[in-house]
Amino acid sequence: MDFSSKLLENAVYEVSQLPGIGKRTALRLVLHLLKQPEQRTENLSTSLVNLRGKIQFCQNCHNISDTTMCEICANLKRDDALVCVVEDIRDVMAIENTGQFRGKYHVLGGKISPMEGIGPQNLKIGTLVDKVRKGVIKELIFALSSTMEGDTTNFYIFRQIEGLEVKTSTIARGIAVGDELEYADEVTLGRSILNRVPFEGSLRQD
Amino acid sequence: MDFSSKLLENAVYEVSQLPGIGKRTALRLVLHLLKQPEQRTENLSTSLVNLRGKIQFCQNCHNISDTTMCEICANLKRDDALVCVVEDIRDVMAIENTGQFRGKYHVLGGKISPMEGIGPQNLKIGTLVDKVRKGVIKELIFALSSTMEGDTTNFYIFRQIEGLEVKTSTIARGIAVGDELEYADEVTLGRSILNRVPFEGSLRQD
Repeated sequence: MDFSSKLLENAVYEVSQLPGIGKRTALRLVLHLLKQPEQRTENLSTSLVNLRGKIQFCQNCHNISDTTMCEICANLKRDDALVCVVEDIRDVMAIENTGQFRGKYHVLGGKISPMEGIGPQNLKIGTLVDKVRKGVIKELIFALSSTMEGDTTNFYIFRQIEGLEVKTSTIARGIAVGDELEYADEVTLGRSILNRVPFEGSLRQD
Repeated sequence: MDFSSKLLENAVYEVSQLPGIGKRTALRLVLHLLKQPEQRTENLSTSLVNLRGKIQFCQNCHNISDTTMCEICANLKRDDALVCVVEDIRDVMAIENTGQFRGKYHVLGGKISPMEGIGPQNLKIGTLVDKVRKGVIKELIFALSSTMEGDTTNFYIFRQIEGLEVKTSTIARGIAVGDELEYADEVTLGRSILNRVPFEGSLRQD
């Protein structure tokens, strides 16, 4: 693209570096900011710079937090013995939204992915193993996505804690509530039959 | 969404104010920035604040520019007598890309749109009429999109310059080069038949 302005070209370049945003979308967003009051752009950049510069990670679960210990870890009413292992804050938010989980989290910060150059040493696995070793955790719930990377990560952690005194489980895979059977993929449907639950138990979950 | 961090919540809110970006996308973009070096976020915000604070608009054609007169208007080789009326810088870039236009532009900054509260007084129509009145312009090419708003704007400008000594034209509407006739909408196909061009003329344009 041939811009008439270096300032514009530079801004479009920086915005287009964001994932999933091409040059055209970047130009549209930048032109939008030009039409808005200057304060809007100031607010946007200040919020980003503030976040990037001041953000902390909970020293216990590694979730994004404004303090050295996040609200969930600081909550004495939540069960220390039940820990859900997730990839990032989006998974924490999704699970918190259900209102079904009263334990704590351990945020890995990603999944093992040789393709993207992410190895176990890039994730918060060491501190998880340490926590398990201390014996406070009774059950670990693996809640990573069921992709190749997710399964690899689950398996790697599982090997690290093998022999230690802890129960492990993974979240149930199955047909989504409200979904039609005929449109489900066979792997999911197969799993939902293998891992069927007693009828009374299924009612309780709603 | 229930965030564990005010800093994060604030950044996601600001990003989600951009057009076409919802809360989820905003969160994805912000988390991406958190994984990147701090310099990346600094560069992004600086480029936006710089653009918003320092950008100028060409005093002649109103296009975005780093200087008081844009490169196209300052180019003495381009024809002052032929002016293409467009909505914004994206249209200028698109036409410049064709390499077919050696005249100058007049950037309105939008289209008349009562729905969005944009009236003629919000657009750069007055300076266009002034330019026509001075008699330098021999032909005005209307290159607005052929929507209700575009047609309204064309017509409004046309009425303002009625009686003045200037030729007016609009860009040709027709079947796109490489498109199949059978998939074209009837209005476009109808126009392409009404506005047919001599066979020799059609060859010259490639």
